[in-house]
Amino acid sequence: MNHPRTLRVGSDQTISVVCVVGSELNVNLNRSAPPSSRFFSVKCTFNVQYSISPSPLHSTHLSPIPLNGNSVLLIRMNRASDHENDSKLSVRYYGENREVLGRAVLHLTAVEISLDVDADRDGVVENNNPNKGSWQWGPNGHGAILLVNCDSEFMHKKRPDREQEEVTKVSDLKDMSVMVLRTRGPAKLPEGYKLTLHISQGDAESVRVFRPRTSETDNKRPKNLFYKYFVKDYPLVLSSEVLSQEVPYLGEAAEMNLYVEGLRFPDKDFNGLIHINLSLLEPISRGLPETPIFTDTVVFKVAPWIMTPNTLRPVEVFVCSTSDNYRFLKSMKNLVAQSGYKLKICHEYLNRGDRWMQDELEFGYIDSPHHRFPVVLDSPRDGDLQDFPYDELLGPDFGYVTRLAHRQDVSSLDSFGNLEVSPPVTVNGKHYPLGRIIIGVAFPTATRGRNMTEVVQDFLWAQKVQEPIALFSDWLYVGHVDEFMTFVPAPDRKGFRLLLASPDAGYKLFRGLRHDGHGQAKLFEGLTHEKPVTVDEILNDEGLLAENNYVQSCIDWNRDVLKRELGLDDEDIIDLPILFKLVVEDEKRTIEYRAVAYYPDMVNMIVLGKNLGIPKPFGPKVNGRCVLEAEMCFLMQGLGLNCTFIDDFASYHKLLGEVHCGSNVRRESFDFRWWNLEM
Amino acid sequence: MNHPRTLRVGSDQTISVVCVVGSELNVNLNRSAPPSSRFFSVKCTFNVQYSISPSPLHSTHLSPIPLNGNSVLLIRMNRASDHENDSKLSVRYYGENREVLGRAVLHLTAVEISLDVDADRDGVVENNNPNKGSWQWGPNGHGAILLVNCDSEFMHKKRPDREQEEVTKVSDLKDMSVMVLRTRGPAKLPEGYKLTLHISQGDAESVRVFRPRTSETDNKRPKNLFYKYFVKDYPLVLSSEVLSQEVPYLGEAAEMNLYVEGLRFPDKDFNGLIHINLSLLEPISRGLPETPIFTDTVVFKVAPWIMTPNTLRPVEVFVCSTSDNYRFLKSMKNLVAQSGYKLKICHEYLNRGDRWMQDELEFGYIDSPHHRFPVVLDSPRDGDLQDFPYDELLGPDFGYVTRLAHRQDVSSLDSFGNLEVSPPVTVNGKHYPLGRIIIGVAFPTATRGRNMTEVVQDFLWAQKVQEPIALFSDWLYVGHVDEFMTFVPAPDRKGFRLLLASPDAGYKLFRGLRHDGHGQAKLFEGLTHEKPVTVDEILNDEGLLAENNYVQSCIDWNRDVLKRELGLDDEDIIDLPILFKLVVEDEKRTIEYRAVAYYPDMVNMIVLGKNLGIPKPFGPKVNGRCVLEAEMCFLMQGLGLNCTFIDDFASYHKLLGEVHCGSNVRRESFDFRWWNLEM
Repeated sequence: MNHPRTLRVGSDQTISVVCVVGSELNVNLNRSAPPSSRFFSVKCTFNVQYSISPSPLHSTHLSPIPLNGNSVLLIRMNRASDHENDSKLSVRYYGENREVLGRAVLHLTAVEISLDVDADRDGVVENNNPNKGSWQWGPNGHGAILLVNCDSEFMHKKRPDREQEEVTKVSDLKDMSVMVLRTRGPAKLPEGYKLTLHISQGDAESVRVFRPRTSETDNKRPKNLFYKYFVKDYPLVLSSEVLSQEVPYLGEAAEMNLYVEGLRFPDKDFNGLIHINLSLLEPISRGLPETPIFTDTVVFKVAPWIMTPNTLRPVEVFVCSTSDNYRFLKSMKNLVAQSGYKLKICHEYLNRGDRWMQDELEFGYIDSPHHRFPVVLDSPRDGDLQDFPYDELLGPDFGYVTRLAHRQDVSSLDSFGNLEVSPPVTVNGKHYPLGRIIIGVAFPTATRGRNMTEVVQDFLWAQKVQEPIALFSDWLYVGHVDEFMTFVPAPDRKGFRLLLASPDAGYKLFRGLRHDGHGQAKLFEGLTHEKPVTVDEILNDEGLLAENNYVQSCIDWNRDVLKRELGLDDEDIIDLPILFKLVVEDEKRTIEYRAVAYYPDMVNMIVLGKNLGIPKPFGPKVNGRCVLEAEMCFLMQGLGLNCTFIDDFASYHKLLGEVHCGSNVRRESFDFRWWNLEM
Repeated sequence: MNHPRTLRVGSDQTISVVCVVGSELNVNLNRSAPPSSRFFSVKCTFNVQYSISPSPLHSTHLSPIPLNGNSVLLIRMNRASDHENDSKLSVRYYGENREVLGRAVLHLTAVEISLDVDADRDGVVENNNPNKGSWQWGPNGHGAILLVNCDSEFMHKKRPDREQEEVTKVSDLKDMSVMVLRTRGPAKLPEGYKLTLHISQGDAESVRVFRPRTSETDNKRPKNLFYKYFVKDYPLVLSSEVLSQEVPYLGEAAEMNLYVEGLRFPDKDFNGLIHINLSLLEPISRGLPETPIFTDTVVFKVAPWIMTPNTLRPVEVFVCSTSDNYRFLKSMKNLVAQSGYKLKICHEYLNRGDRWMQDELEFGYIDSPHHRFPVVLDSPRDGDLQDFPYDELLGPDFGYVTRLAHRQDVSSLDSFGNLEVSPPVTVNGKHYPLGRIIIGVAFPTATRGRNMTEVVQDFLWAQKVQEPIALFSDWLYVGHVDEFMTFVPAPDRKGFRLLLASPDAGYKLFRGLRHDGHGQAKLFEGLTHEKPVTVDEILNDEGLLAENNYVQSCIDWNRDVLKRELGLDDEDIIDLPILFKLVVEDEKRTIEYRAVAYYPDMVNMIVLGKNLGIPKPFGPKVNGRCVLEAEMCFLMQGLGLNCTFIDDFASYHKLLGEVHCGSNVRRESFDFRWWNLEM
């Protein structure tokens, strides 16, 4: 509901007035009454409603009404005019003796105007939703949704569509939100009136609005070749260069679809909300700006980028082919084929030897009631795989987003093995139906240390719907959270288990072996270039024990954070027997000790539904069976999960990564829609 | 409540453990049990509580309890230890036949630690408020409050205290919020443990923390002269350079007052919330960072800058003395003296001829439960008065804040005649007990135009508690909202009236004069250098009428915005008879017409309680009395207000300003405390 608009009506004047259906005109009668006026009366045609405030004592308006200092006439019109000035209202002013002192006449034209969006989020633009001007979270919330147009309609010579100032293909329109301009009234607006779409400078940096070409505007616009070729049938209405532009009034009962394109994701300085205004402008006089006499405002929120946890169904698995990973690739092919998913291999001419498919990118998606598509977040890591997300993934209905960081700000913690997401959780009554993002950073009390770069952290926090948790991962040489944790689906409890690497569990297993007489069983048997080590040797190495005590305390610190932030009990966590060792790092001339896995780090696995692809640990054997594999299978089979052990020793483990680091999985979206979150 | 901390207890080990009272230790028994363990038992001294999860079937713990995969021991201590390791807990592990396989012994030391603030906002720091870690608006809300230390303890060689890295005077401490570190336990912490205050990099830009010197730390710290002289008795603990620092554990039952100093006001990139953490760190091993085993967090919100509307009681009135304003100054002196307030005159050697005291600064204040003081907001206008706010106002308990803008971004709309605040209002059920800020900007549909500079607008919006309203003031040559509106106190209705300049009211008055035979009455009579004009001449000037119609439509547009945003009825508004004229401005080679007052602009008044100082309009006289003055008195006397007309014609009006532009009023604070707002 717009508030009443002050209308000035002089006495002995006949003026033409445009009134928007649903809004009110407020005439201060005293202000323009002739001198000595004491009474007034009002008459009007049937399409006009009026009321007087303060209400006259006598209910009939037939006899003149006393005029006082605050007499206000409120005028409304209930339906659109067929013709200009087809309605009328007149006011007579009278003196002390009821003599007529003056008469003001209004010729009224009513128009209906509405800027409409899909505020109820059902995929269809409804008519004048009363909540269209505000945005509220939740299943009972409201407010329209906008996608960042970050895919590319073209595969050849492509750029994300949001970087193009024009609609390059009609298919691009489905990535935009429809906004309908509805008008009803005479065939033309009265002379000098016009409709304008406008937006604030701040909002215009995040959005563009297009409209279809109409025959009317065709005639007005330049017809040079450049214009015809690029802008074609969808002229740009609003952008960061054009904050305000007239839109055609089509006359009688008309609807025009406008197309709204999101340009940027929520970020530290942008909460995602965008207001777009439609105003009816009234001319005042030549050389002066027109006055808006009616403004309708709609609001959009830009959809956040959403990550997909291990519990969602895989769609495609990505791995690199390198000169030395033939065996690994073959095992992965088998696992993926047997699980029934698609495998995409990034060949060497593309990956240039960079095998860390997990680290260069993170798959996610964006969602709206009208459309949804996957979006890859490209890491500022920028290894030799850096062109892969843009060159190979960006395309029709496959979006791309990145954050630019200064080279010197980027560390190993910016690789996306250090960016994971939990399954849905409830923490002290607070629901996270899309889970929570998990990243690794420097230790909170450390005065130095590596960190995930600010621009990426800001981006992740600003998405809001998967509120991030910062873990301590800087104790690891590579520094990624996927080196000590993962999530697997489970049929019971919260629907998943958190798996944690645990030196304590490793030592317990090895002590049990020694206790049972297997102290001479060997790790790393059968590996070339790797000297086998016995269980006894490991248990007798006091330095290694101290190192693993430290590692366990680091993991325990993270374990406590995860329990608190994900609302987990000990029963939701499974400790995997994994040992680490510390290596010396002479970074910036400060000697630091950081951890790497002692044998293949089983927690660094790929999760494909019920099938797990786990780094083959090459542990000690009892009765011909690797006890680490046996323990892993035992722990997982209770959850109905199948373990496949993949030999990544030479081609990944020795390069300080494992199966998870060397792969990536695009998964299905959540069934839960993000706007139904209660915030 | 802190969540349980994972504690590792090996079998056949005796370890010393520090436990913080109120927190829990979580021991996974299975993880460290010797191989083949099947049962366990627990014993402890009286100060230790424990529970076992899952709960054993038999309620007695005397016989060994079956060990299963998830057996967890939760340990708590209810009061602080008198001596290190004065409590004990032991776990025995048994095999299948109840033979003892191992025994773990914990020597426990309990400490109480709490970081405390005034979270209940009564001016006193309470003990361990359960809400101290979060901030909530409203009378039932909670959360401590911080002042920006923007005053200066010194008048000589002064700088705002927030720009000084040290506590320069003990009186400075009262501008800070007290934060109490409470500890209880043995005389010393066990070897290697320490207490640390820490803060995030982002928060550290907005806050500094000092502590009193203790004899203990005196001995530890360098005693060079520089240190002694500057840091004196209050060493800096946290700042943007020091994100983490050890604080002394004083031993036994001790309290230490820490002093928290706010450095910056809420702004576009800062919501005012600051978290400060206290951690107890446990040593792990040489060369590795210590682990926090307990963290207590408190939150502060920085107090916003608050403006004071005309309805608040004046304290001091400020005007400039110039070579040509002797008469004006005399009238102001009389008015202020007669109203019973203080007058402060800014002399010419300071103002250098710049008489626009309203425009260079805005008075406001900051408020907290422990302290409150006035704060001047210095405009980026920077006329010849630019040094006045800093040089003359900044001082003990008088704060100073400004926003730096690029010279080319500053326009006349940055003068603070264009920054006002309404009295308290309620709008559609939403309360604004501190009123709403009002600024003037370019017209929303204009593609060009002057504006208030971004940095000042961002600052005003970020204060939150007086949510701003943007009016259209660019239609005025000078461009200030105080040229067409003000608020005066009223005994009825909402406690105030909005006064608006109204050409329509002016024309109505003049038409009445002509109608009553006074068409030859003259404006500007008796003024030197000003040609008198008759009422008839004014009414016959059709160009002037058109100009005033335009002006009225601009004011009406603002009137509608004010009615909507302040929840006003027509009865809350009084139209003052004021005419304008348009002048040509050739700004940036674009000819634009903008408005100036035709005769002294009566709405541009000074409001001192019930006394109004109004620009003397020099209107037409009837029976020897100026009809504009008479009308003004008539309109105001209904509200119990007294009008004093001040001749500002030559020294202000002709320079395009009036009484309000040439004065400023510091007022008392609101009784309402801003943190009691419901947001």
